[in-house]
Parts: sequence; C-alpha cells; structure tokens
Amino acid sequence: MSATSAESRAMQRARESSAMQRARELGAAVLGTTSPNPAVGAVVLAADGTPVGEGATRPPGGPHAEVVALAQAGERARGGTAVVTLEPCAHTGRTGPCADALIAAGIARVVVAVPEPTELAGGGADRLRAAGIEVELGVGQAEAEHGALAPWLTGVREHRPFVVWKVAATLDGRVAADDGTSRWITGEVARAAVHRLRATCDAVVVGSGTALTDDPQLTVRDADGRPSGHQPLRVVVDRRGRVPATARLHDDAAPTLVSRAGTPEALLAELFDRDVRRVLLEGGPTLAAAFLRAGLVDEAVVHLAPSLLGAGASLVGDLGISTMARALSFSIVDLLPLGGDVQIRLRPTRHTGGDQHADGGS
Amino acid sequence: MSATSAESRAMQRARESSAMQRARELGAAVLGTTSPNPAVGAVVLAADGTPVGEGATRPPGGPHAEVVALAQAGERARGGTAVVTLEPCAHTGRTGPCADALIAAGIARVVVAVPEPTELAGGGADRLRAAGIEVELGVGQAEAEHGALAPWLTGVREHRPFVVWKVAATLDGRVAADDGTSRWITGEVARAAVHRLRATCDAVVVGSGTALTDDPQLTVRDADGRPSGHQPLRVVVDRRGRVPATARLHDDAAPTLVSRAGTPEALLAELFDRDVRRVLLEGGPTLAAAFLRAGLVDEAVVHLAPSLLGAGASLVGDLGISTMARALSFSIVDLLPLGGDVQIRLRPTRHTGGDQHADGGS
Repeated sequence: MSATSAESRAMQRARESSAMQRARELGAAVLGTTSPNPAVGAVVLAADGTPVGEGATRPPGGPHAEVVALAQAGERARGGTAVVTLEPCAHTGRTGPCADALIAAGIARVVVAVPEPTELAGGGADRLRAAGIEVELGVGQAEAEHGALAPWLTGVREHRPFVVWKVAATLDGRVAADDGTSRWITGEVARAAVHRLRATCDAVVVGSGTALTDDPQLTVRDADGRPSGHQPLRVVVDRRGRVPATARLHDDAAPTLVSRAGTPEALLAELFDRDVRRVLLEGGPTLAAAFLRAGLVDEAVVHLAPSLLGAGASLVGDLGISTMARALSFSIVDLLPLGGDVQIRLRPTRHTGGDQHADGGS
Repeated sequence: MSATSAESRAMQRARESSAMQRARELGAAVLGTTSPNPAVGAVVLAADGTPVGEGATRPPGGPHAEVVALAQAGERARGGTAVVTLEPCAHTGRTGPCADALIAAGIARVVVAVPEPTELAGGGADRLRAAGIEVELGVGQAEAEHGALAPWLTGVREHRPFVVWKVAATLDGRVAADDGTSRWITGEVARAAVHRLRATCDAVVVGSGTALTDDPQLTVRDADGRPSGHQPLRVVVDRRGRVPATARLHDDAAPTLVSRAGTPEALLAELFDRDVRRVLLEGGPTLAAAFLRAGLVDEAVVHLAPSLLGAGASLVGDLGISTMARALSFSIVDLLPLGGDVQIRLRPTRHTGGDQHADGGS
C-alpha cells in the first residue's frame, strides 16, 4: 500500500506533535534556571522526520533552546523542521537572533507553539518567512502556555512573577496540630516532591510566622539531605524584623532576601525586579490567605495526608468568604498518589482579586 | 508447542483467579440487598474451563450465590469448577445447604476465597471433600474480605455493622460556609456517586443537627431524582426529639428509625438487631467525631471539592488529639476524579478506639 499525500501529511503532523510534546518536556526540565528568560524547549527533525537534535534554554547568557538543538543536529538539520515552544526571537540580546541561526542551518520548516508576545523579541516568524522558511504558529499553544512558559508569560502580561502555592495538610485541612506540631504531616515521598518543586522556582517565600515556628532551611536537597547545585532565592516576609540572624534561613546554603513588603503585590514587584519569574509560596495560612484574597495564586499544589486531627491551624486563613456560593474555586490539573499521600495540582477558575486576574490566560 | 502439565495448571490458575475476580464483582453488585446474609458471588466453570454460570446472593429467603450460578450452568456444571467468595454452607436455613447443591450438580472442584467463620454454617468444605470434591480455600482471601464480605464478617467478628463514613468537603476541610450554607460543595457527578453508595448500605445515619440544618431526604435517587426500588433504612439520632414530623426524613419514600441511642456503640447495637450490616454515616462533624473517637469507622469515603472557604464548619469535630504524632491515620484504598471533584476512599490504620479495633481485619 503506497502512502497517499494525505497519509504522509498526517504522519508528519503526528511526528511534529510528538516532537512538540518532547519540546515542552525539555522546557519544563529547565524551569527555575532560565529566568528572566523563558524556559523554552526545541527539537530538530531531519528532512525525513527523524529527531536529530534537542535543546532547552540555558541559564541567562547561555544559548537559547533552538541554538542548542541545532548544534546537536549539525548538518542533519538541513532541509529539516525545527519544533519550538516559543517563536524564535529576531533580536540580538546577550545572544544572537535565533531566527538567523535557523536560517543559517538550512531549516525548511519551523513549528511554534506560542507566538512571541513582546515587541522587542518579535518578528522572528516574519524574518524566517522572508528567508523562504515555512512557519506554523499555535501548535499545542494552550499546553505550552500552561506549562513551562507560564511564568515568563505572566511576567510579560502582568509584570509580576507566577505564583505557585504549596501546602501540606491533613484530610481535614489542618497544617498543624493543636499544640503547633507540624512534623511530619506527609511522608518522605511527598517531602522529596517538595524539593523537586522548589528546584523549578526562582524564589521560595515564607512569612515570619513560619520562619519562627518551623525554622525551615528552604533549600533544595536530595533524599540524603545533600543540597542540589541550583538553589532558589529564599525569601522571608518580615516587616517587623522578628526572624533572628540565627535562623536556618540565614545559613550560607543559599541566598536569602528579607522583605519588608506590606502586601503580596509589593512583594511580587520586589521579586520581579530581581528577575524572579516563578515563586513558590510555602508560608502558613496567613500568607496564603493574603495571596488568595489578592487573586495572586496561579497554581496550587496541595499535598494531602490521609490523616485527621480534628483541631489545629487550617491550611488557609480568613478569605472574607461567608457563603458557599462565594467559595474560591479551582479546577484540578492533575491528581496523583505520592507515597501514602495524595498530590492535587489546581488552577484557580475564579480569583478573588478583581477582573484583571479573572482570566489571566496563564 | 504442546502444553506441559505445568502450563496447563498455570492456565487453570489464571482462569480461576479471573473467575474469582468476577465472583467478587458479583458479590459487590448486590451489597446492601442481602443483609443479614453475606453478599457472596459465585462463578461456575465447565470442565473445559469455560464460564457457564454466575450468581450472587439473592435477598433474604432467596437462593444463595452458588445455587443461582448452578441453575444458570445446568448440565454444563458436571465435572466443572465452582468459584465462590465464601465457603459454601453446610446447614439448612431458609434455603438448603449449598454444599449439597454443588454435590448434586456434579461439580468436581470448588475454589473458595474466605473460609466460613461461623460454626453454624461451617463444615461445607468437609462435606464437599467427603463427596470426593477437590476443595481449595483462601484464594484471593484478603481481596474478598475487604470487599463485599466485609460488612458480614464485621458482624460475625464484632457483632456490629460495618461503618462507612462519607463526607463532602472543600480542600480546606470545610463542610459548610460561615453562614451555614453547604449546597452544593461537590458537583453532580459526586452527588450521584453518593446515591450509588447509599444503595450499597442497609442504613443511612445522620444526627439531629444535620436533619434540622439540611433537611435531607436520604433516599437513593437516580439522576432525574426518581427513587430507586431498594431504599436503605433512614436513621436519625435524635435523643431530645428535636426533629419535627414534617422533616423530609419522615416522608413515605423509605422507612425511618428515630434512635435515642446515646453512644455510637448503642446505635450500632440497635441497628445490628435490625439486621443492618453496613451503615453509611452521613451526619455532620459531631456525629463523625463520635464514631471516630470510638474507633467505629471502618471505611471513609471523602469527596473533596477543588474550592476554598477559609472559614466554616470543619469536616470532623474535636477528636481529643492535640499533637501531630497522635493524628488518626488511614491508608488510601483508591483515589479517583469524580467530575470536577475527587474521591478518596480510605481505611483506618490506627483507630482511636482501644485495642479491639486496632486490627479488626475488616
């Protein structure tokens, strides 16, 4: 049976869709190491459709994803297809324009998930087309926007970091027992997942209450307690200077910022100025409630332990909600067992924080 | 390639294991309709291993599972294998002994999950063996004991009904908002699942608080609100006679018991005497806490809505637990999305209620 043109076209689509999924994974794998640049992933397919190169954004100053993938592909890129999560840039920043690198490599077709939203770096698709390259935009765009590009897109659109709120609680929503003890709510597998989550963020934030009560180190460590190479900025919101210099937050395992910000907005502005694009909120109920009330939580990662306390601090403080119809609602992104515990990842469907956050698209 | 004897033995095992799984499903499908008898499932395999009959316990006075399956198999049962979740009985109650029915049908082998634990109905395996039938006990015993047989086994071992606690809450463990509103925490799919769960129970229990606040009807209804044929007993614990005769609980859609029992133990004794073997606890935080403190919850079905309230009644009242190390712990049986909500089914790993409940085996 000979392949018709439609069949061959369908096979090409399937190969590109699978390459785009891989590109998203490549981008996700460098989340937390690229800010203020986007965590982009790229795959180069040879003219016959075989994957011959892949890459992701290197830390600031290093090459972009397309350039890494092209270098790996070498001469096999000629006549091939580049599959990229973000439109290749046309401007010269710390690195040369990616569009030019694709042209120079002899790429025939470029498949892009998310069109470049900034004017500065825009024009990549136009430049490619002018060089005779076929460009397709918007392939798997929603998945890419909700994936590793979300922090950077939030920065572009709202000039603030993307906020992930992580909380570990019992089935009855307690983050501590009546006597204040909170170790350990969840098991080892869930706690290891928290370290992996921290590694995907540029900063980890707690309030002074948590810093004083739990004295957390807030570093990324492996199962044996060894710190990983890349450490997010540790941030403690401490307006009244309550946290002593002897706190573990102040050890030399990672940089630490003591913020005097009075509102979530002010804190996020301060972090944005420091190139933070993805923040992990690990504070207690008061900090979480402040961010939720302000409509400034973009994703929630809830670790639920299969246990009950019947008393103790709740996972979120007062939200100013008095009736069921006004409950803050989320949609579940995914649900997975985590050792003996459960992880629920959620995205808000209704923020409290005014219209600008009602449908942020990220 | 000719099958060796070992291969043929392995194939037989696989067929019997698959028949046992089907038998467990058949038993589970009649849960809530057989009490005080066990919800047994049976499959008859012909001599060549083909399934030729299946059955489950009929309502009290009707035939047992084996007899139903044998009737369907007819002459094809001769020389075949009967796969049953519970050891066939050897006594004549309202129906004749199942062991005799298997002998009369010419069954050559009987595979059983759970050996009969009562002396009254025991001796089935012996009687079968005396008739020259091969009997194997304990095949998939743990699965069968934790499945549809659990209520009946709890009755035999502890002389009380098996208790399923069902609760619907927000992510922060609230069952109502600050103003008392609780409709609806979960979506339609979860609410339909509650009706299916009620149908598997002999009785549904609430406290007077829930009866007064929510005025629930507590019947089993389909998606269009039509009542199903089989309705569990509705029970309201109302020591002080607070629930008026006009409450929906008192309509004629199902029988209702007003209990004056002062403790969970007393209530369960009262229900056990009425042949209730599986109870669904649908009351509020006070009733749930009383049962949990007494170590009288055998299974929890938690429906979590992806929402936050920040205030309102918690899913369980005071458990007398002040420190994390004393948290009531459960293990997760299964975890599934339920429309936009989540269902977590759990079994206690540590009861509060004294040693007799610490490892109940059910």
